[in-house]
Amino acid sequence: MISSFSVFAPPLMGYGASDIIGEKCRDLGLTKVILVHDLGVEKAGLSQRIEKSLKNAGVEYVSFKEIEPDPTDVSIEAGARFAQQSGGIKAVIGLGGGSSLDTAKGINVLMGNPFPLSDYFLGGKPTQKGLPLFLIPTTAGTGSECTQSCIVSDTKNKRKTTIRSSNCNVATLAIIDPALTLDLPPSLTAITGIDAFAHAAESLTGNKTNPVSDALNKESLRLISKNLPIAFKDGHNREARESALLAAMMAGMGFTNSMCHLGHSFGHAIGAIAHIPHGLAIGSSIAQAICFVADATPERVKAIGECMGLTFPSGVSAEEIGRRTGEAILKLKADINLPELKSLNVTREQIIAAHPLIPKDGCYPFAVKTMTEEQIKEYLGKMYDNVL
Amino acid sequence: MISSFSVFAPPLMGYGASDIIGEKCRDLGLTKVILVHDLGVEKAGLSQRIEKSLKNAGVEYVSFKEIEPDPTDVSIEAGARFAQQSGGIKAVIGLGGGSSLDTAKGINVLMGNPFPLSDYFLGGKPTQKGLPLFLIPTTAGTGSECTQSCIVSDTKNKRKTTIRSSNCNVATLAIIDPALTLDLPPSLTAITGIDAFAHAAESLTGNKTNPVSDALNKESLRLISKNLPIAFKDGHNREARESALLAAMMAGMGFTNSMCHLGHSFGHAIGAIAHIPHGLAIGSSIAQAICFVADATPERVKAIGECMGLTFPSGVSAEEIGRRTGEAILKLKADINLPELKSLNVTREQIIAAHPLIPKDGCYPFAVKTMTEEQIKEYLGKMYDNVL
Repeated sequence: MISSFSVFAPPLMGYGASDIIGEKCRDLGLTKVILVHDLGVEKAGLSQRIEKSLKNAGVEYVSFKEIEPDPTDVSIEAGARFAQQSGGIKAVIGLGGGSSLDTAKGINVLMGNPFPLSDYFLGGKPTQKGLPLFLIPTTAGTGSECTQSCIVSDTKNKRKTTIRSSNCNVATLAIIDPALTLDLPPSLTAITGIDAFAHAAESLTGNKTNPVSDALNKESLRLISKNLPIAFKDGHNREARESALLAAMMAGMGFTNSMCHLGHSFGHAIGAIAHIPHGLAIGSSIAQAICFVADATPERVKAIGECMGLTFPSGVSAEEIGRRTGEAILKLKADINLPELKSLNVTREQIIAAHPLIPKDGCYPFAVKTMTEEQIKEYLGKMYDNVL
Repeated sequence: MISSFSVFAPPLMGYGASDIIGEKCRDLGLTKVILVHDLGVEKAGLSQRIEKSLKNAGVEYVSFKEIEPDPTDVSIEAGARFAQQSGGIKAVIGLGGGSSLDTAKGINVLMGNPFPLSDYFLGGKPTQKGLPLFLIPTTAGTGSECTQSCIVSDTKNKRKTTIRSSNCNVATLAIIDPALTLDLPPSLTAITGIDAFAHAAESLTGNKTNPVSDALNKESLRLISKNLPIAFKDGHNREARESALLAAMMAGMGFTNSMCHLGHSFGHAIGAIAHIPHGLAIGSSIAQAICFVADATPERVKAIGECMGLTFPSGVSAEEIGRRTGEAILKLKADINLPELKSLNVTREQIIAAHPLIPKDGCYPFAVKTMTEEQIKEYLGKMYDNVL
C-alpha cells in the first residue's frame, strides 16, 4: 500500500517557549495581531503572559474572547468581523484548548477568503492563504496546534463539521509551552489527556496509517500512558506535564494524516446525546473501539498494548490482544478518575438510541471494519456499562 | 531547554511509489525535467523505470549521469550548466544514493541562484527558491531525501562542506519505494544501513535533540536493528527492505533537525585518510562514539540499547549502559559483515594521525562532551582495533 505523510506546523517546544511570541511576531514584521482566547485562560493568567511578550516586543494586539465551547460558524464569523474591523491585523494567535484554537483557525480562513464560513464546510476548500497563524495550546489534548483541521458546529444543519485546509489552518508555528498547563485542574487534565490518547490509538489502528504517523503515535502512546496518571495526580510535575503536552502534539501530527475512527465516531454521537465535553465522550468509547478492531488489525492493537507496558506471549490470539489492551485502557481511565457514562445524567436507553449517528459520522469510514446495527447497539451498551 | 523541529520533505511511501513520478510531474505542469542518476542505477535498471513513468505521462526529460562519488562543486556545476543549456527544465529529479541526491540538490541550488556553487558554502545561503525537486533514494542509507543538506566536496579547499537550504534542498516530494532497493548487493546494504543507524543514534544523543526527532530516531533504531541483518542476508525480503528504507528516511528527518556528532566527526576523518566509502568509515566509529558519551547522556544511550532489544536493570550505571550498548552495535556490525579498518589498506598509525581533523569537523560541536587530544587518539586506536 502506498501512503503519504504531509508536513505539519513546525513546533517550538519547551518551558518558556510561549514567551518568544512577541519577538517572533516582531521579527516577521507582524506589527498588529489578534489574540484569540477564552475567559478561562484569562482567569488563569495565561493570556496576560502572551500579552506581556507582545507588549515587550512592541507588537500591537486586539483580543477576541467570545469563544464558545464547540464553536459555531456564527461565533467564528463574529471573531473574523471583529478582526477585520480592528484594521491592520497581520497575524492570528490562538491560545487555549481546542475550542479557542478552532476559533482562531476559523477566523484565519475568513482573513484570506470570503464569508460565509459555511462555504468551506464539507470539502469546500479555502483557496487563498490566511494570515500567519500561531497556535498555543493550554491543554494536552486536541493536538489542534499541529493539525490542518478546524472543527465547527454548523448552526444551520445542527451538526459538527470540519474545514481541512493547509492554506489557513496549518500554524506558521505551534508553540508548545508546558508552563501553560501546570495549573490545569485534574478533571480537565484527565478529559483532555484521554482524548489525546484516543487520537494516537485510533490513528495507529485505522485504514489510513503510514509509517511516520505510526512512529509519532507510538511515542505519543508511550508518553501518555506513563505521564498522564502522574500529571493527573501531581499537576506541578514538570516532566509529566511536558511529556503529556508533547504527546498530545505528536498525536495531532499523527491523526491529521491518519485520521481517527470508531472511538471518535461513537464519542461524537455519545457527546451529542449526553451533552458532555468531547474528551469525556471519547473517553467513554475508546477502550471498546480498540477492542472491537483487534481481530482485523491485531499487530497494531498489540502495539498499543506494548506502548502501555504490556508484554504478550508469542502466538497470542487476536482476541487476547484486544481484551488485554482494552483492559489496560479501562485501567488508565480509572487511574485518572474519568467519570463513567452511568454516573452522568443520561440513561442506557438514551445512549443506545444514538446508534443511527455512528455510521454517518465523518470518522466512521476510517475504521478497518464496519459494524452492523446490532453491533453498534451492543457496543453503545458496553460503553455505558464501562465493560469490554 | 527550548527546541524546535522543522518541517521536512513530505514522503510518499510504499512498493511502487516511484511509478507515480510521471503522473505527479504532469499534474504539476512540469513538462520537462532533468533526471540525475549515476551509471550504477542505470545498470540496475532503475533509471529506466523512472523514465518509463515520465514517458507514459508525456513528460520530457534529459538525463545527467556524470555523478561523482562524494560529488565536487565542479561536477555539480557541470550538471547545472547541462540543465540550463537543455532549456525549459521545470523540475529536478534525483535518483540514487547520497551522491546522486546531493548532485541533484546542488544543481537545484544553481537553478534558482547564480553560480558559483561555492558562494553557498559555509553558511552562504541560496536566497532564491530552486525548481520543484523530487528525491528518490535507491539505498537505505543517507536519508538525504528528507534532509535540507547538500554535501559537496569543495575542490578549492579540499574538504567536504554542506549547503543547508530550505529553499533549494528540501524535496517537494520524497519518494520512498523499497522496490528500488531489492537488488542492492549485501555489502552496499551493510555500508549504507550502518550509516542510517549512526544518523539515528547520533542525533538521539547530541546536544540539539528535540522530542519529535527523538520519536523518529527511536523508531528508526528499532527498525534498523531488527531489519538490517535480515535485508543483508536476504535482499529480497520485502518487509525488511521496506523497514530499512523507512528507517533511513526517518533518521534523515531526525538528523537534519538534531545533527550528528562524534560518530560522523571521526568517520569523516577516517574516510578522508583511509579513502573508504562514507558508510564504512562511519561504521568504524559509531560504537565507540556512542560508548564515549554514555556518562554524559546515559538515559539517551540507554534508549539506543533498548531500541536494539536490550533490557537494563534499574539502577544500572552509565558505564554499563555505554558498554552494553556499544557491544550491541559491534554485534550488529558483525551480523552484517561490516569490514573492520584493520582489514583494509590502512595502518593504525595512519588512522591515529587523523586526530587533528576531528575537532575541526562540522559535526564535532554537536557532541554533549568535548574530547582531549589524548582521548581522540585513544578512540581512533579503539576504532582501528574494533574494540570499545
